[in-house]
Amino acid sequence: MNIDSALKLDAQGLLAAVIQDAATGQVLMVGYMNPESLKLTLKEGRAWFWSRSRQKLWLKGETSGNFLKVIEVRIDCDADAVLVRCTPAGPTCHTGETSCFYRIISSDGEISEAGATAGRP
Amino acid sequence: MNIDSALKLDAQGLLAAVIQDAATGQVLMVGYMNPESLKLTLKEGRAWFWSRSRQKLWLKGETSGNFLKVIEVRIDCDADAVLVRCTPAGPTCHTGETSCFYRIISSDGEISEAGATAGRP
Repeated sequence: MNIDSALKLDAQGLLAAVIQDAATGQVLMVGYMNPESLKLTLKEGRAWFWSRSRQKLWLKGETSGNFLKVIEVRIDCDADAVLVRCTPAGPTCHTGETSCFYRIISSDGEISEAGATAGRP
Repeated sequence: MNIDSALKLDAQGLLAAVIQDAATGQVLMVGYMNPESLKLTLKEGRAWFWSRSRQKLWLKGETSGNFLKVIEVRIDCDADAVLVRCTPAGPTCHTGETSCFYRIISSDGEISEAGATAGRP
């Protein structure tokens, strides 16, 4: 089976793409890919996305230099999301944090910087 | 800051939700949450989603018994995705696989069961 026939795109023609550090297992970011950005990712071995806000292709790291080198690309059971296991060249988040998921939501919905809270929110 | 004011929902009023095994780091699935399902997840400590196909709330495990016990919920820098670190009660995928991401995409776009291929696709 090939992605040309298998992909189940959403109403915007996109797939969710989870970026995971292949070495540490840390989830670094979530982005969106259209079929073209997925093919570029597979072909070049660097993660490409579709920017929903700018409505254009973007190569992660094209301005920051923090490219995501692709180790492995996986697809889920219903073919509407991909998991891209990568080696990041630097911090993935534009804030300078290693991961975009640097904040915790507590059980009452309050958002705080991670680190102070451990275990069940 | 509270999720009531912070969430950046998509055109369908949803957030992407990445489910990760808190013990192993394995990414288990991607689903979608509306604010109500996120609040149920935070309050009950079990992962709730919004089904885009059925247009209703669903508690993961309500039919299979394979609930996802919540250890920690994180939110990303632009507040449009959450990372839910869980302890799964059983296989997360409806196919019986541990993770929904049990297939690999090779560099030419071919999809195959994982295991046979290692390293760079």
